[in-house]
Amino acid sequence: MRTANEIGKLVIVGVGLIGGSFALALKGAKAVREVLGVGRTGANIRRAVKLGVIDAAGALDAATLGDADLVLVATPVGQMASVFHALAPLVGANTVVTDAGSTKQDVIAVARRALGAALPRFVPAHPIAGTEKSGAEAAIAGLYRGRKVVLTPLAETQKSAVELVRSAWRQCGADVVELPPERHDAILAAVSHLPHVLAYALVHQVATHPSAEQQFGFAAGGFRDFTRIASSHPEMWRDICLANREALIGELDRYAGELADVRSMLERGDAAALERLFSQARAARERWLKGETGSA
Amino acid sequence: MRTANEIGKLVIVGVGLIGGSFALALKGAKAVREVLGVGRTGANIRRAVKLGVIDAAGALDAATLGDADLVLVATPVGQMASVFHALAPLVGANTVVTDAGSTKQDVIAVARRALGAALPRFVPAHPIAGTEKSGAEAAIAGLYRGRKVVLTPLAETQKSAVELVRSAWRQCGADVVELPPERHDAILAAVSHLPHVLAYALVHQVATHPSAEQQFGFAAGGFRDFTRIASSHPEMWRDICLANREALIGELDRYAGELADVRSMLERGDAAALERLFSQARAARERWLKGETGSA
Repeated sequence: MRTANEIGKLVIVGVGLIGGSFALALKGAKAVREVLGVGRTGANIRRAVKLGVIDAAGALDAATLGDADLVLVATPVGQMASVFHALAPLVGANTVVTDAGSTKQDVIAVARRALGAALPRFVPAHPIAGTEKSGAEAAIAGLYRGRKVVLTPLAETQKSAVELVRSAWRQCGADVVELPPERHDAILAAVSHLPHVLAYALVHQVATHPSAEQQFGFAAGGFRDFTRIASSHPEMWRDICLANREALIGELDRYAGELADVRSMLERGDAAALERLFSQARAARERWLKGETGSA
Repeated sequence: MRTANEIGKLVIVGVGLIGGSFALALKGAKAVREVLGVGRTGANIRRAVKLGVIDAAGALDAATLGDADLVLVATPVGQMASVFHALAPLVGANTVVTDAGSTKQDVIAVARRALGAALPRFVPAHPIAGTEKSGAEAAIAGLYRGRKVVLTPLAETQKSAVELVRSAWRQCGADVVELPPERHDAILAAVSHLPHVLAYALVHQVATHPSAEQQFGFAAGGFRDFTRIASSHPEMWRDICLANREALIGELDRYAGELADVRSMLERGDAAALERLFSQARAARERWLKGETGSA
């Protein structure tokens, strides 16, 4: 007598910030009966149980997966191929599989190769939320409240599977939208993957400078906020950048063009052009903060 | 019977976030008797009086400046030449002049040309504090608490003038240090001016993209924090970038090299190199946040 809104057994593969917060949010909404967690390290899974993020440890085996209603794969993107291969022969005939990867075309390609008969019950998804923190202890029930979750279903994805995943994210408080996977990846390259690379590169530049110590000594609040995302999980971001590297290289090249323009304004002392660029950027950001479009 | 710690009459030229917060902090410390404010627009000065940031409106005239103990010039760097020229013949024989400019070599060059006999009582200074907000209504008494203020005195600067300015900033709760002006400018180019340019350029890139509206629609917390400094005052940052353009161009060129390295790692799919760079950056930032040196 299960409706699409009810999840009996949820399995989280990768109980970190993203997977853990999904579990906590569904528990908080009383939208799930039982949550098992599967992880690479026993220590993290034990911590997740102790923190009440999951109810018990599971494994990539038939006992855990055979009667699961929903499996969320929330590992770094680079591990999804092996997780999907392991899952495919073990999940039940009604088990819906979804992911939380920050890139979608590559996850879909992996799923097509690995999931076999389970593919129509796979719903590619990306919750656009997170902090620079990682691990089960960073998980919070409210992480997804008011945030966007993008679903990028395939032509063959079952409608009922999409509805189950959509309903779960809605019960986490998220705003669920659908996009073609290539649109998703292009947009995220510009507003998420590029800024992460830029922040990592700036901290790297300062850290490897002969005067690094002195430079850090005078870095203040602007530097702190600009570089917050450079405290993000290096392995996760390595995978994201490689998975979406074509779009990311495109955005990096556009950005190199922006910087070359600024350099030329500085070289020729073009005060008006600099002020125009800075003013346009500030105005666009202010519109964005107010919830209007930021387009110039 | 005035000691170096007491300011009778303080004049703030440019009553915005920086000048206004200096006034509020000294008032809060009961370290000043009277604060006059001088501004380009009557409206901002009236607001500053109403908010209690300053006691009354002044002007660049003998009545305001002739018996001032301390004059803080807290205008955008580009206005300092005209302000110094106006001040020079009007300040009293004991009036100490200081500034709050984010660049020091150019302010010193301007001061040398404009201040005449008042030059030995000029103390170049830069409080490394601020927010992306501007105007007298953004001023807060605690802005400088625990923050660094850099003094870059000249060979001819009177010791007593330096002591007055140092004491005033200390009473604002700041940590006062001295640096040669060219060191100051090189360091700030790397940890402040470059990040501001990078943030402005990223917002500009998104705002001018054909899909700007959709891109902003999916921008989240990482983008918000990364670009916070792109809401900074465009005119002020135009002046800073031009004033320190040699050092800034040097840092921009180093940064272009960092991005070219990342691009090449992406091109050749070098997962190990990407993860190493990201990990080094994260580790350096974490050390910096803990108050250790962040050098790699």
